[in-house]
Parts: sequence; structure tokens; C-alpha cells
Amino acid sequence: MKQITIKTSTHSYNIYTGKNIRFNVKEFLPKKYSSILIISDDTVNGLYLDDVKGSFSADEQVFHSVIPSGESSKSIHTYYQLQTDAIKFGLDRQSLIIALGGGVVGDIAGFAASTYMRGIDYIQMPTTILAHDSSVGGKVAINHDLGKNMIGSFYPPVAVVYDVHTLQSLSEREIRSGYAELIKEAFIADEAFFHTLMSTKLHEISAEQLEMHLLEGIKIKASIVENDEKETGIRKYLNFGHTLGHALETEKGYGTLTHGEAVAIGTLFALRVSESVFTSNLPYDIYYEWLKNNHYPLHLDHLNIEKIIKMMKSDKKAVNKQVQMVLLRNITEPTVVEVDDQDLKQLLDIFLRELVKN
Amino acid sequence: MKQITIKTSTHSYNIYTGKNIRFNVKEFLPKKYSSILIISDDTVNGLYLDDVKGSFSADEQVFHSVIPSGESSKSIHTYYQLQTDAIKFGLDRQSLIIALGGGVVGDIAGFAASTYMRGIDYIQMPTTILAHDSSVGGKVAINHDLGKNMIGSFYPPVAVVYDVHTLQSLSEREIRSGYAELIKEAFIADEAFFHTLMSTKLHEISAEQLEMHLLEGIKIKASIVENDEKETGIRKYLNFGHTLGHALETEKGYGTLTHGEAVAIGTLFALRVSESVFTSNLPYDIYYEWLKNNHYPLHLDHLNIEKIIKMMKSDKKAVNKQVQMVLLRNITEPTVVEVDDQDLKQLLDIFLRELVKN
Repeated sequence: MKQITIKTSTHSYNIYTGKNIRFNVKEFLPKKYSSILIISDDTVNGLYLDDVKGSFSADEQVFHSVIPSGESSKSIHTYYQLQTDAIKFGLDRQSLIIALGGGVVGDIAGFAASTYMRGIDYIQMPTTILAHDSSVGGKVAINHDLGKNMIGSFYPPVAVVYDVHTLQSLSEREIRSGYAELIKEAFIADEAFFHTLMSTKLHEISAEQLEMHLLEGIKIKASIVENDEKETGIRKYLNFGHTLGHALETEKGYGTLTHGEAVAIGTLFALRVSESVFTSNLPYDIYYEWLKNNHYPLHLDHLNIEKIIKMMKSDKKAVNKQVQMVLLRNITEPTVVEVDDQDLKQLLDIFLRELVKN
Repeated sequence: MKQITIKTSTHSYNIYTGKNIRFNVKEFLPKKYSSILIISDDTVNGLYLDDVKGSFSADEQVFHSVIPSGESSKSIHTYYQLQTDAIKFGLDRQSLIIALGGGVVGDIAGFAASTYMRGIDYIQMPTTILAHDSSVGGKVAINHDLGKNMIGSFYPPVAVVYDVHTLQSLSEREIRSGYAELIKEAFIADEAFFHTLMSTKLHEISAEQLEMHLLEGIKIKASIVENDEKETGIRKYLNFGHTLGHALETEKGYGTLTHGEAVAIGTLFALRVSESVFTSNLPYDIYYEWLKNNHYPLHLDHLNIEKIIKMMKSDKKAVNKQVQMVLLRNITEPTVVEVDDQDLKQLLDIFLRELVKN
């Protein structure tokens, strides 16, 4: 088992990673709770709920709620249902919520915890690679019909318990999705890690490699969050690839493209824009080839560019209705740039045509 | 104009009170905002929206949303509608929300601000006496069908701008409602203030008296909040009268009894329970006579006691499903006591019978 501690100006909590630690969740809790609500989705529920529940003794009050798998669960409707469950189960201010699942479960369960009775403790138990990113740092949210993650809080968990054994049940698509965030982290913070990832073939990856990559990603994320919990400065860099990524996810309908798949394309586009703004020499082609070789879906047609630009303008990072994009002056040198609508439209148009052509 | 500064461990903000300061709101903002959304209800909107809007110049982006008056607006539905408005108006992370109205508007607008894009700034502009309590301290929330204020945040405003002139438009019922909270504050913190209030006749109160009482209440509230922003200790005392109060509000249906009317009865009951637990000599009769003379609604019939006890047990202060009540060992000596279900039931039964009889 490995342990990384996150210390921000106001909070401190531990991230535990290791094989089969889901069976010992109770050991990682910072205090005793009056009752516990485990929230998972209908995929994870069947796989790991009993393991986690088994960590607690029979006389403890442990309840569970199951939400449908997929991004469409990050809705106000499901959120309200979780609040109803929490009230009906009798959760009080001394209760704990456990978010057992991928990014969707972590985001909605964390947001439910942040607002139930004005906030109770929760822990993150990620079961996907992708969730290494969302489970660390305390950004929790649900989607609005008009935009992703528009309703949420900054509300750190009291612990992150990451059982890497659960990653063995992931599909290829979920592995691809997770690696998109790892590559993003490498781009903004660690060039050697980037090259390591580019030499990785996802279909033949070993459990050891995966755990190593995951820890590398968590370390990058942790170091950024420690310095800027509320995203007033450098934390914005973690949105590299997400400006177009979020818009694509929304436009294609949550769930059509996975979050990671959308971010992969968004990252590629951010590289293209970076080249255009800074005329720097970024590894666009290397990354593009890697995406293709690892079977990322790159052919997007029937996209309404006007609508996508409009969504990019309503992104949470936008200020005064101008798109703010994280770009790279060079690899590991991110910066936030306000991009002109017309330039953006032209670049996006060319970029999407290229993707369809190749 | 008077100014009180609230300093908690993490935040600091000013409360401004004065006549007609609504015309100068802009002067009280801590910084420049990219756009502003004024949220009010359909009563306040017609009275004061233009005054507040007039404080800003024509080239500033000032939008407004109007919600229906009354407690039933503190719903998930209205909350989501406000988020929709905020997105459609193009509010970004540098935008401000102004909560212009009573406690309902302050609570829901504050909660919307606390969760829009994970939190933007907001100011409170209370227009009722009752809201002197809710506008200070950063407790914001909406109601769940199963309980009042069950969904919310601790999220302080960046300023409170209290134009006492707006109190002149209050109905007698709203004045009564507001004084219930002032009396609660007096009970837990200031005996002289309690006697002052008991010698006040609400129907002949002057604007000067009212402002003086209001400032007294704000000072009590401010001093408690400064010492315990997140309600882990002494802030709980502010819930004096609220355990039964909230249950009555929910049981009678939000809006049938005003919040203050419910709190007035809840306070009376808390005095009765205090006498029973501590056999102390509290001014139950004085307070009861005052409520009667000032025409508070005290006749509650057709109440389902079992249901009320159940609601008291799902109150946010309940721990391990035991009702926690704030009681007085003596006037200005509050304490939190776990009350046994059976005792509570018996006391409540007798209390309600007495009320109906008198």
C-alpha cells in the first residue's frame, strides 16, 4: 500500500493506493461515524459493494444507494434522489458517504455530501483510471442541461481509498478514457512521463505499469491542488484539453463520447491552437499517431461548430464571454490564453476537417 | 449608516445598515464584477428592484430573476431554474449574485451562488426583520420535501446591505415573524434586551426602535457566528426554538405558518421543556402573554404528534436519531440536551393541549 498526503491551506487528507484495500476501508476512516451511505452505480454495485460493506461489522449502520451507470446520472434528478435516500436512511451530520465508482459516482456523491445538511464527510473510492483525476482535489459537481459540471462545490474528501485491483474489471474503452487524463497531466507537468506514456500500448499494459502511471498522475494532480485548491491560478492548467472536450461531450450527448475520449480530442485541439498561437514545436503528430494506434475515436462528423463555440464560451473558465483556453508555450509550460472567437472558429473548422479526412 | 464587521477564521465581511442605502449598493461591493444577477421575489421585485438596479450604470451587465414569494420557492425546482437563468445570462466566475428580499430569497439565492460554477460571490440585501438572522452567517439552503433546509452550504456573503427603509413596507404578520427571532436571540444571549422586547408593542413600534432592535439582534448573531462559523459548537444555540419550529412549519405546510410564527411557538415549547429538565424559573408566562397580546397565532389543532416527533428526529441537529434540543438552564444560559422520545411526546402533548385550551 502507498500513501500520498494532500495538504492545502484549509484541509489535509490521505490518498491510499494498493491491491485489495477495498476489503479494509474502515481502517482508512479518520474517525467513527454514526452511519454510512455507500453510493455506487449499477455496474460497480454488483462487483464491489459487498467487499466494501464487509469491511464494517454487523452492528454498524451501513446503507447503500445505486445510481444508473453513465454520465446521464449526474443530473439534478439523481442528486435529489440521493438526498431523499440520505434522509430516509436517517443520515445525520456525523454520517459518512462513500463514493464507490468512477468519476460520475465520485462527482455526484461528493456533491451530495457537500450539500446534505450543509455538508457531511465523504471518501472517494475510485474504481476507474479516469477517476484518479476527479477523486483527488475536491471538485464535485453535477451537470446542468446547458453545461457540464455547472452546479457543484469545492469540497475535499476526508480520504481517497484507491484499490487498484478494481481496475482489472475495466473495459478497453475505460482504459483509453483514463489514459487521456494521464497524458494531459504529463503534457502540463512531466515530459519524461509523456514519453513513457507514448511508448505504452494500452492493449498489452500490465497491472504494475498501470499502477505506476496512476501514481505518477496522482502526484502531479496532488501537487497542483495543494498549491491552488480553489482554482484561482495554476489549477486551471488541469483543464488542458477540457475546453473543447467538455463542449464535445455536451454536444454529442453525455455518454456518446466518454469523458476521456472527449478530452483526448480536446487535448489534440489544444495542441493545434498552441502551435498556432505560439508557433512552438509540440508533439502533435506523435500524440495523434498514439491516439490512432490505441483506437481512440477520432472521427467526428455532423458537428455544429457554432454551437460548440457557444458552449466553449459558457465554460466555467470563460470570463466576459471570451473563451479561455489552457495552451502550451512548450511541453510542461501551460498558460491560460483568451482566444478570439473568429480565430477559434477557423482553427476548429480546419481541425475537424483534418480529423474526418485522416 | 452603521457598519458591523464579521470576522471568522476563514472569512471577513461587512454588514451595512442604514436608511435608503439600497440606492447605493455599488459602493458596498468589495470589487468589480463581470456581471450581476439580482434575485428577488414577486413582492420585493415591484418595490425595490429598480432602486437597486439604478445603483449601477447603464453599461454594466445587470440581470434579474424573480421567484414566487413564499417558502414553497425554496425548492429544488426553483433552484434549478435560477441556475438556468444564471447560465443563460452568461454569468461567469467573476459575476455576483444579489439576494434582494427576505429569508427565502436570501437562502435560495445564496445556495445558488454557493454552487453555481462551484461558487461565486453574493451579497445579502434583506428586506424583512426576520432576514436579519438568516442574512448574517452564511447558512444557505433549500428545502427537501422531507425536511426544511436539508440541502445547503455554509457559504458566507461578501457583504450584507440592510436598508432599514425597506422594513416600512412590512405587514404586521412579517413584523411578528421577525420579532420571534429577535426574542430568540435575547433569550440565549441578552437578558436586558429580552425585557426591552417584552415591553414593546408591535403595532405601535417606531422606525427608530425597530432599527435599534435589529442592530442588537445582528450583534448577537455576529458574535456567535464569528466564534463558530460551521455550527460545531455554540452556533447551535441559535436553533433555540427551531426544533419544534421547523417541524411545525413542515407539518402545517410551508407558508401556512410563517417561519417566525413557528419559531415563536417552538421557543415557547423549548421554555416548557427547559423548565421540565432543569426545573428553573423561566419567563414562560411573560413570553406567552406577550405573544398573545401581539396576536401571534397560538392555536394549533389537528396536529399529528407522532409525525412531528419523527420530523424533530430527522432535524439536522439530531444525532443517532435522538432529538437534540437547545434548552435554557437559565435565561442566557443555553445548552444542547438530548431529549428522550417518550418524555418529548408527553411534554408536547400537554403543551399543545394547553395552547388549544387558552
